[in-house]
Amino acid sequence: MIKKKLNINGNYTTVLVEPEALLVDVLRGQLHLTGTKVACGKAQCGACSVIMNGKVTLACVTKMKRIPDDSIITTIEGIGTPTNLHALQLAWVKYGAAQCGYCSPGFIVSSKALLDENSNPTREEVRDWFQKHNNVCRCTGYKPLVDAVMAAAQFMRGEITVDELGFKMPADGKILGTDYPRPSAVAKVTGTIEYGSDFGLEMPAGTLQLKLVQAQVSHAKILSIDTSEAEKMPGVYKVVTHQDVQGKNRVNGLNFPSNKGDSYDRPILCDEKVFQFGDALAIVCADTEANAQAAVEKVKVELEILPAYMSAPAAMEPDAIEIHPGTPNVYYKQRVVKGEDTAPLMEQADVVVSMEDLFVGRQPHLPLEPDVAAAYYDENGNLQILSKSIGLDLHAAMIAEGLGLEAGKNLFLSQFPGVGGTFGYKFSPTIEALVGVACMATGKPVFLNFNYYQQITYTGKRSPFFMDVKFGATKEGKVIALESNYAVDHGPYSEFGDLLTLRGAQFIGAGYNIPNINGTGYTVCTNHGWGSAFRGYGSPQSFFASETLMDILAEKLGMDPLELRYLNAYRPGDTNPSGHEPEVYSLTALIEAIRPKYQAAKEKAKELSTPEKKHGVGISVGVYGCGLDGIDGSEVWVELLADGRVQVSTNWQDHGQGADMGLLATSHEVLRQMGIKPEQIKLVTNDMNVAPAGGPAGGSRSQVVVGNAAVNGCQQLVNALKKADGTYMTYDEAVAHNIPLKYVGQWSTAAENCTACDENGQGKPFAFYMYGVFLAEVAVDTKTGKVQVTKMTLAADVGEIINKTVVDGQIYGGLAQGIGLALTENFEDLKKHTTMRACGMPYPKDVPDDLEIIYVNFPRKAGPHGASGVGELPLTAPHAAIGNAIYNACGVRITQLPALPEKVLAGLQGKEIPIVKRPIKNPAY
Amino acid sequence: MIKKKLNINGNYTTVLVEPEALLVDVLRGQLHLTGTKVACGKAQCGACSVIMNGKVTLACVTKMKRIPDDSIITTIEGIGTPTNLHALQLAWVKYGAAQCGYCSPGFIVSSKALLDENSNPTREEVRDWFQKHNNVCRCTGYKPLVDAVMAAAQFMRGEITVDELGFKMPADGKILGTDYPRPSAVAKVTGTIEYGSDFGLEMPAGTLQLKLVQAQVSHAKILSIDTSEAEKMPGVYKVVTHQDVQGKNRVNGLNFPSNKGDSYDRPILCDEKVFQFGDALAIVCADTEANAQAAVEKVKVELEILPAYMSAPAAMEPDAIEIHPGTPNVYYKQRVVKGEDTAPLMEQADVVVSMEDLFVGRQPHLPLEPDVAAAYYDENGNLQILSKSIGLDLHAAMIAEGLGLEAGKNLFLSQFPGVGGTFGYKFSPTIEALVGVACMATGKPVFLNFNYYQQITYTGKRSPFFMDVKFGATKEGKVIALESNYAVDHGPYSEFGDLLTLRGAQFIGAGYNIPNINGTGYTVCTNHGWGSAFRGYGSPQSFFASETLMDILAEKLGMDPLELRYLNAYRPGDTNPSGHEPEVYSLTALIEAIRPKYQAAKEKAKELSTPEKKHGVGISVGVYGCGLDGIDGSEVWVELLADGRVQVSTNWQDHGQGADMGLLATSHEVLRQMGIKPEQIKLVTNDMNVAPAGGPAGGSRSQVVVGNAAVNGCQQLVNALKKADGTYMTYDEAVAHNIPLKYVGQWSTAAENCTACDENGQGKPFAFYMYGVFLAEVAVDTKTGKVQVTKMTLAADVGEIINKTVVDGQIYGGLAQGIGLALTENFEDLKKHTTMRACGMPYPKDVPDDLEIIYVNFPRKAGPHGASGVGELPLTAPHAAIGNAIYNACGVRITQLPALPEKVLAGLQGKEIPIVKRPIKNPAY
Repeated sequence: MIKKKLNINGNYTTVLVEPEALLVDVLRGQLHLTGTKVACGKAQCGACSVIMNGKVTLACVTKMKRIPDDSIITTIEGIGTPTNLHALQLAWVKYGAAQCGYCSPGFIVSSKALLDENSNPTREEVRDWFQKHNNVCRCTGYKPLVDAVMAAAQFMRGEITVDELGFKMPADGKILGTDYPRPSAVAKVTGTIEYGSDFGLEMPAGTLQLKLVQAQVSHAKILSIDTSEAEKMPGVYKVVTHQDVQGKNRVNGLNFPSNKGDSYDRPILCDEKVFQFGDALAIVCADTEANAQAAVEKVKVELEILPAYMSAPAAMEPDAIEIHPGTPNVYYKQRVVKGEDTAPLMEQADVVVSMEDLFVGRQPHLPLEPDVAAAYYDENGNLQILSKSIGLDLHAAMIAEGLGLEAGKNLFLSQFPGVGGTFGYKFSPTIEALVGVACMATGKPVFLNFNYYQQITYTGKRSPFFMDVKFGATKEGKVIALESNYAVDHGPYSEFGDLLTLRGAQFIGAGYNIPNINGTGYTVCTNHGWGSAFRGYGSPQSFFASETLMDILAEKLGMDPLELRYLNAYRPGDTNPSGHEPEVYSLTALIEAIRPKYQAAKEKAKELSTPEKKHGVGISVGVYGCGLDGIDGSEVWVELLADGRVQVSTNWQDHGQGADMGLLATSHEVLRQMGIKPEQIKLVTNDMNVAPAGGPAGGSRSQVVVGNAAVNGCQQLVNALKKADGTYMTYDEAVAHNIPLKYVGQWSTAAENCTACDENGQGKPFAFYMYGVFLAEVAVDTKTGKVQVTKMTLAADVGEIINKTVVDGQIYGGLAQGIGLALTENFEDLKKHTTMRACGMPYPKDVPDDLEIIYVNFPRKAGPHGASGVGELPLTAPHAAIGNAIYNACGVRITQLPALPEKVLAGLQGKEIPIVKRPIKNPAY
Repeated sequence: MIKKKLNINGNYTTVLVEPEALLVDVLRGQLHLTGTKVACGKAQCGACSVIMNGKVTLACVTKMKRIPDDSIITTIEGIGTPTNLHALQLAWVKYGAAQCGYCSPGFIVSSKALLDENSNPTREEVRDWFQKHNNVCRCTGYKPLVDAVMAAAQFMRGEITVDELGFKMPADGKILGTDYPRPSAVAKVTGTIEYGSDFGLEMPAGTLQLKLVQAQVSHAKILSIDTSEAEKMPGVYKVVTHQDVQGKNRVNGLNFPSNKGDSYDRPILCDEKVFQFGDALAIVCADTEANAQAAVEKVKVELEILPAYMSAPAAMEPDAIEIHPGTPNVYYKQRVVKGEDTAPLMEQADVVVSMEDLFVGRQPHLPLEPDVAAAYYDENGNLQILSKSIGLDLHAAMIAEGLGLEAGKNLFLSQFPGVGGTFGYKFSPTIEALVGVACMATGKPVFLNFNYYQQITYTGKRSPFFMDVKFGATKEGKVIALESNYAVDHGPYSEFGDLLTLRGAQFIGAGYNIPNINGTGYTVCTNHGWGSAFRGYGSPQSFFASETLMDILAEKLGMDPLELRYLNAYRPGDTNPSGHEPEVYSLTALIEAIRPKYQAAKEKAKELSTPEKKHGVGISVGVYGCGLDGIDGSEVWVELLADGRVQVSTNWQDHGQGADMGLLATSHEVLRQMGIKPEQIKLVTNDMNVAPAGGPAGGSRSQVVVGNAAVNGCQQLVNALKKADGTYMTYDEAVAHNIPLKYVGQWSTAAENCTACDENGQGKPFAFYMYGVFLAEVAVDTKTGKVQVTKMTLAADVGEIINKTVVDGQIYGGLAQGIGLALTENFEDLKKHTTMRACGMPYPKDVPDDLEIIYVNFPRKAGPHGASGVGELPLTAPHAAIGNAIYNACGVRITQLPALPEKVLAGLQGKEIPIVKRPIKNPAY
């Protein structure tokens, strides 16, 4: 141990530390300066940035023994506080630069150091600084961060006033559609919001720290688990195994009835078999993390190794053994049949194009915040679980049987106060059941925080699609038939695998009026990382297929790709692949809006292109439905409080997308009729104990489904309080008149006559869609094959905008993830793809500063205040536009993502571009 | 467990808590808002004050389950920060309102709430507020706190500028004698300085939390200690007993050679016997405090109860068994013999007065901060102990053998960054050896924090003196002979008991030229709380005897008590009881200075007196020596640093008295010759690893002994760097010229020909003394007997003042403790005297706002910049003046302190005032 004297944020601090301890752990764990975050743990992301002796320092790799005594350290806590914000923090709020907020402290600290050195940086210098200091953001696409730094610098130079750094309330008090800052912004930019890892540090003494014993192989039979030696280790309270689980020890996957799996294929703690790398075999519960980890090494697990099927093609081979004995590896089949038989149409078509090797890989979500959960027994003896869950009520239902509890009776889930990005991976329960089991087995509060390696290797991923797609078209370019055949590698656990496969049926070819469709998708059980939701859910795979093929069709027809799309785009009376009419017909308007940009981009690409750097332009169309399939409902409670405020309660889970802002602005727009100001609305959310089910925060459903329920609840209250003279009752008046104070707002897609798709993929699964046209501009380095996206433009129809900053931010962030999906992101190699950087996280310089959004918003008649959703749209098809732009730039057609430099270079050099193995076409089913 | 949502300092916080958990523990332990302090733990002292929903709330008794959700809480961290101080904090700095600083956050928070309600309070309203909110300070005497609130309020009302709330540097840059704020002030007023309990919360995960198994009886033989059940308790790592102690298991008491004890009577962990209530029998080492405490209950101790001797008279009885077998209970005898045989002189004297029942009891120190310590092994395998020790090198020497280590080789002590008041109790090692033993037995960092019950019952106390004193005088009032006989109840442990008994020889009758003295003091081993140093060390007992007797003599002579003192006070050529000439003769000047105040006070008392409330005035003289007896030396290292600063290193332990300020101003006054500014002096102190021995911070020795060594070291540096042209070399020049950069400053009382007292108490034990004349004004309620001190005045000679605020503060605080000693403070009844309030802690309204200091400072030729000491002076004799004032007011003579209302009332009612048993006069020795 060494005693270190430091000056932290102006405080002289003497702290006893292990010489090898990391600065970030000392700041957070010992000094409780929890504004500094741990994300990658490997100096790759800047979440842990502090300023030490004038330099940006990554605290996650800085050992205490290397820090000179009397060092001067500034953390986010030393930059500003909620009641005394620094200009950077004000700007961060204004520009919506904190979405999930997990990277915000690091970025703000880094920006502070920049402005200390350079009070007047250019945008490019800001980006260079972030790049150099490894500052990574997964939510914002970086643009809002640069906007914020530029504005703060302007203020600090005295060029703008503090008022210009803040929100200005419109005269009419209406915040709908404005830049009103999200309620959680200040807490995020000051590092004071409590993410799971912060909450964990604040738990009572005696909280048990959990560490998992995880499988180091991908498929095995478990012969024995011996915990005796581990249980004798210092500080160990208990080592929990499947034998301690009081319930069924299985997560309920809620499979479709036609799914061959029984919904109970995912163990909480493995008992008979290991199904994937990282599977949890035991949980060590100890007094400290270090003691728990030391004991993990002492748990002896005897395994019989089985062949590991690491992709759908491998698992579909006839000789592959059943991963879940009794359930075939191909466990679900989704048909899509619309219109006439396509076989004869293909025969008759003027032009037929097809691609058999289309593949979109296992995109990792790469949220900055690793997975984290806590559990405890409340004063009523109910099990309480906190996590990053974006589907509290859903997940409670999924894990209750496994734990031997009843959701909402003796099992309650809630979100941590701060939740880092999930981008969908938390649509599946991850470690909720594990902390639940540990708490039940020990009776103690427990806490489990993944490191980034665990985050990457042991949370769900986007499921790879292996796709074979064919268009038949007239010589004028009208697509008359679509055939598709695809296999989905969904990893070992079936939950939502059927749903995902259905998305292929719904979105391959979406955007166009294709009257005749015949397709089949298969869901395949493999031993690679389990498939979970990811922004766009099924659509990035689907659109990569159909939007790549559209370009090939255009080329074959000699048509401009944009015009081919314009020709086929939905027009009144057309139907989508599910066979129903879109709620609005905005796609042609979107194409019209983007056309001049597209033309200019093509001109510019031509001008800029050199043999060394070839520029190109690509287009794609993206569409996504808002909601769960078929009937999807929500509930919001609205209550007048004694102090005149209105409480709005629901579980609209926030993972950085802006749930708080959505609920506030949506509710306010109704409540302002009776003079309620935004600050008079008290949101009570994301806790099953106190708020009703809003439904999971995924699939861009919340704003429309929960939003409509909020409107309904608020309107009930407004109506009830309205007096004959047009004024509204006060609380006291309402009580005096026996007017109920609390109203249950409800809404369901039944109001829009939605129905789940039938066995042929036909129905009206969604009441609302979002529509977009992507324009990608790229430069390809012909020496290295490296592709740089120079600009992304999205013409978008998301309905009426509820909050401009939030909607812009969603789009910027989605586009950046599209760039990652297109060019770098992958989780395939368990040895290699284990860090943020190795997984291809886009860094600041990988995303262009020039991200343009053209809104052509068609109000949705039945949407809350005319809104549709937004979050999935920007990640439906940007990568397809980028792929098309690469082809446009250099003639290399990438059919399998990511378009790594070596692939592009192989294409440029005329070599064969290596591709993944194709699955067998018509597997036994 | 319950999940609480709170708004703390503007941060929204969600924290999981036990329903029964206390707010202060959640704030400190879970949220690490360590500015809020725990002291009494019973809502008696206000150290834990926070503002909750607008009201001052004592967090140490506020259960979490009682706190409404969404409560708004302000802690000291929310009031201001080191870089952004609130007006109250600025004022607290300016007025030296933070001495040890442990009460400061609570007072500032409380004051904030006051000013929120009342922006223009009177001084009395401020005091009423503090009284009502139980805000207690043990250092300042309250006056500086009221000054600070008044100034902050003025500033907040816009009546003074912020500059007027700060220190103004004089044009000449000289800070000596100014109000320059102490270096630690900002950290104290912001709650950011790390006291032991804060440091403990910042220790690395895996630090073991210690709890003591303590004796619940006062005297017993230990038959067995069974730890087996305790060691099986959850979270327990080890239960340490005497069998685990690797060394001698005894504290070395460093007894005088003539002491009959062998210096090794105090066990670290009891092995054969229990000697006092609270004695440590075992140490439970566990992961959490709660687990450690739970296991404490499971340690089974079998005892054979022995008769407990709870006072010197009891232990001196011939039939009392030896508490330490082999050593008589009366283990040390101190003679004082000066001049002629006193027996015939008494016969011849015109007037003889005597008192046989004088008694000063077991005054408890009552620091706000309870005792606390930590230990760990450093990277070299050396044992490091942190504590409140005010004698680091001394204590290392005292505990090394017991631990089986070597001080300064493999055992090092240091102070926590922040040390609450000790007022001398930490002149003895308390729990240092206990944490050392636990660390050695477990190999882990360990932490032990006493609760206030432990602080009261198991740290040393002022030792009661039973005194029998006689004066013989001429009819003109010249005292010609003094006889004394006294017994000191020093508790079970002999350390410093001989030294303390010597103080009786040195200070009974001090201040006056008494040519003939014959006295004997006995040190007695008892089973009550062990005797440790306490401000004034031996002098409050001594002066209570001689200054009470002086008043009786004056009355007998019909002289004014002041004039009697004036007549006898030291004049040139006179000698003190140790037989040497004082270094200055300031006492007559002090009496002259106070005379008009005294006359006026007498007039006023006469005017104010009513039958219900009788006013009176009392006088006393106080003198105290600065230093350890005889040869007392110190070392200070002074080094020029590369950045041009000068580093000054020594162990001048701080416990709130202002060591940092003393060392800074003393050094600066030398270093400013070469242009060094105060902020260019880097103090490196109170850590044996990096600083040399300054000697213990007690007996008002540090300013003179360490101060002189600092002057010496600084002057060496200045001389070495001085160039021929009168300018000074820079660091680079010094290096270029091979001038040494580091100088060892030294000083010893040998320079002033000091010698320890001989067996007759004669010698020159001290080079410097402090002199004072106290004037007490009291009002006695004749219905209740309650005495209110209405004003205290001290005419003081402390030599040149090094820092005015510090010296004022020492005096105010000492006077308040004198009031406590006189009227309320006691630790006698183990069942009753167990809380701050029950022990008689003076509350704001117990101390008058009117505390006046009249400085008549005689510069000390050999003192650093002319200084003498200060800390002990105000507690030498104020209680004697109060006792005399009570008599003056109502004719009741209190001979035994404290002068509780029931005693005064008995006197008023002509009843016998109960007194403690008198010891046998000439015990076998």
